[in-house]
Amino acid sequence: MAKDKLVEQITSMDVDFTQWYTDVVKKAELADYSGVKGCMVIRPYGYAIWENIQKDLDARFKALGHENVCMPMFIPESLLQKEKDHVEGFAPECAIVTIGGQNTLSERLIVRPTSETLFCEHYKDIIHSYRDLPKLYNQWCNVVRWEKTTRPFLRTSEFLWQEGHTMHATEEEARAETIQMLKVYEDFYRDSLAIPAITGQKTEKEKFAGAVETYTIEPMMHNGVALQGGTSHYFGTGFAEAFDITFTDRDNTVKHPHQTSWGVSTRMIGAIIMAHGDDSGLILPPRIAPIQVVIIPAAQHKEGVLENANALKNRLAAAGIRVKLDDSDNSAGWKFSQYEMKGVPVRLEIGPRDIANNSCVLVSRVTREKSFVSLDNIEAEVAAMLDQVHNELVARCEKNLAEKTHIAHNHEEFLDIAANKPGYIKAMWCGESACEEQIKDETGGVKSRCIPFGEHEKPSDVCACCGKPAKHLVVWGRQY
Amino acid sequence: MAKDKLVEQITSMDVDFTQWYTDVVKKAELADYSGVKGCMVIRPYGYAIWENIQKDLDARFKALGHENVCMPMFIPESLLQKEKDHVEGFAPECAIVTIGGQNTLSERLIVRPTSETLFCEHYKDIIHSYRDLPKLYNQWCNVVRWEKTTRPFLRTSEFLWQEGHTMHATEEEARAETIQMLKVYEDFYRDSLAIPAITGQKTEKEKFAGAVETYTIEPMMHNGVALQGGTSHYFGTGFAEAFDITFTDRDNTVKHPHQTSWGVSTRMIGAIIMAHGDDSGLILPPRIAPIQVVIIPAAQHKEGVLENANALKNRLAAAGIRVKLDDSDNSAGWKFSQYEMKGVPVRLEIGPRDIANNSCVLVSRVTREKSFVSLDNIEAEVAAMLDQVHNELVARCEKNLAEKTHIAHNHEEFLDIAANKPGYIKAMWCGESACEEQIKDETGGVKSRCIPFGEHEKPSDVCACCGKPAKHLVVWGRQY
Repeated sequence: MAKDKLVEQITSMDVDFTQWYTDVVKKAELADYSGVKGCMVIRPYGYAIWENIQKDLDARFKALGHENVCMPMFIPESLLQKEKDHVEGFAPECAIVTIGGQNTLSERLIVRPTSETLFCEHYKDIIHSYRDLPKLYNQWCNVVRWEKTTRPFLRTSEFLWQEGHTMHATEEEARAETIQMLKVYEDFYRDSLAIPAITGQKTEKEKFAGAVETYTIEPMMHNGVALQGGTSHYFGTGFAEAFDITFTDRDNTVKHPHQTSWGVSTRMIGAIIMAHGDDSGLILPPRIAPIQVVIIPAAQHKEGVLENANALKNRLAAAGIRVKLDDSDNSAGWKFSQYEMKGVPVRLEIGPRDIANNSCVLVSRVTREKSFVSLDNIEAEVAAMLDQVHNELVARCEKNLAEKTHIAHNHEEFLDIAANKPGYIKAMWCGESACEEQIKDETGGVKSRCIPFGEHEKPSDVCACCGKPAKHLVVWGRQY
Repeated sequence: MAKDKLVEQITSMDVDFTQWYTDVVKKAELADYSGVKGCMVIRPYGYAIWENIQKDLDARFKALGHENVCMPMFIPESLLQKEKDHVEGFAPECAIVTIGGQNTLSERLIVRPTSETLFCEHYKDIIHSYRDLPKLYNQWCNVVRWEKTTRPFLRTSEFLWQEGHTMHATEEEARAETIQMLKVYEDFYRDSLAIPAITGQKTEKEKFAGAVETYTIEPMMHNGVALQGGTSHYFGTGFAEAFDITFTDRDNTVKHPHQTSWGVSTRMIGAIIMAHGDDSGLILPPRIAPIQVVIIPAAQHKEGVLENANALKNRLAAAGIRVKLDDSDNSAGWKFSQYEMKGVPVRLEIGPRDIANNSCVLVSRVTREKSFVSLDNIEAEVAAMLDQVHNELVARCEKNLAEKTHIAHNHEEFLDIAANKPGYIKAMWCGESACEEQIKDETGGVKSRCIPFGEHEKPSDVCACCGKPAKHLVVWGRQY
């Protein structure tokens, strides 16, 4: 049977999660390797997911007053070096242009790994008075961070992202922006990607190069491994001082503005794959799925079947549902497995008997349950099942997160969990980077994910590493 | 008066068109210079124009079955060299990455000047059978062509564009695609940018590196100079042969597919500025204007004025009109000149007397005529004036094109026109590149724009340069 043949081609996630991931990326036609080391080709189906992500997030940004701009893709080396911590963080992973128009350049150009420095240079020109603030800019673009080992979407030398860079008159306002944008990401992950996730503050050791504070969203993948899903940084006035950006405030004194930046990237597609997928392939959250429902006619050669299927397609499209009718001459079994692989949330089957009964069959990609529904109100039926799939995905992620989050009361317990149970570990921490280092070494890679927001658990009074008085609850885990 | 002060700051287009252009780019806050030589910062207002252009064109592409993808921004040097003519055309203007992750790269990477080679490499992997054709891919991205002298939007080392790359089973289908996409550009220029333009085929000398044939759209700017506004290329099977792309056709024989590519860029914003602008600044075509109508309240401190202005804003926004209310404390005169500078197509003035009369004033940015209209049907009134502004812009461009297009019957007349009259010259041509070279040298820069479509004029039987038998009517002109 065609279906079995196709499904056999992907590795089971329980056998080899890494290979399963690669198989899904390839078989669902999301991305392909390119001849350029570490760079991928994002194929039409993968890019359509990214377009839906962009459209959704862009509307959220604009509703909060942000505007899009476009900065150059090159950063003169001297510009990148203006902020000390920042250049130290990025120098090892830069791609550098040394030749332009057949001549060696007098100053080398860095292909942007992130654009704080370019935004600062521009802000210096356009910010003079408190009337010029806040500046709430964002850009959608490609960036390059030279990576040794790469995997499609998760870690590639070039990737697509958005980077917001804002300037504010006061620390309070900038801090509020930092938290607000992390909340935008959290809402987007849950409401659009169907991925509920832990959010919190990065430790000093894990924060962004040049930031005063970094906040993060840390969705858990199906196998218990964390993916840093998005970050939001408060910079204070560090960059503004390095770049000499000042404004005259209402009280007529000259001040440095307070800065933030925040970004999410095509990594989110990796998160979708690993949070929701199963052994039949991808499962796409309905709100960003390029195809929300696929219509598969049964006995399509019989009179009236294709006409009815087409009419149904037009009805659903008119209701704003992203629908595809597959009337190709492939077998129904092949089509079933093909659209399961591609993660289409809902399948609609319609054949001669259904048409005679004024009904059709809806199948959820998550539960595979079949519902026989009337065609009278099919738009609402499909919309309801899309919501149901969304809710099922959220619930599954919540369950996975709960089952794979463990509390460690002391060092021994911590090491035991790290060695034997995949997932997150909640444990107290003294605040010292040395303990983070020690834990990473002892466990072969467990790192602090964040100091979580809104957590009141306190499994111990002392650090789960050194035993000294504890300062924070920390969520720990391995990461992609 | 504030208005005069602002207007004084820009150079008159009749005094110095080049300076006028630069002033408009700066004062309308479209773009700014960056610290990176030859690269610009596209500011929010300029980028919002680009977003509207993208949205409009992208829908036109998708309606014809095209899909978006994302290729790497780097091209390994050996890949760029696979097609001989192509590499010769682009080698002189490449930016080259030689260092990645602190190591000298074993193979240098070209920052893409265009992506034919990357698409071909991918197409080789995914095209095997006639069932895989056509492939109708497009990408929106940044490209780099190292330029010595640059001007914002018109010629920058980095620019934004879309590049369509398609593969077809037959020559006929690929040729039809090439012409179809040029037609898409022509329709878009006229219907969305309000710029009617000449279209036609490039001569052998002027065609794209590696193409069999290049088609072009050549809008005329206000000063009579041409801007190559978009191109569509038919490649035959040249790249497919160089990249060894083959497919098994229905007749079971192995063939090379036929290829096209087509692109338009942020240059279009330059075309908008120079086709429509005047001494008060930018004039934006309503269908891509970020702000279609600006509401400026008179005596806004008086009771009810701002409430009514806000209600009006909400009504217009609900009708799908892009509207801004400026209730800042700047003077009305300052606001008038500010939004004229920014090219907002329609101004709506409302004050206490208007409110008492249930009316307001609409002012066209093109004609500056005032209309007193009732508020009862304001949505339709504003929509009608937006259409009127669009039509006025089209008519003005048509008039400019007609007035500045001259017919040369012989060589003497050609040189006389080229020396004395700005604009296009229609003249016969023998088909030899030598005559194009000679005309360019004699006139200090007049080049063949294209062999125009649908022109039946025949001003002479012989070439306006060499006097030998003529093959084609050619439109000649100076260019940006």
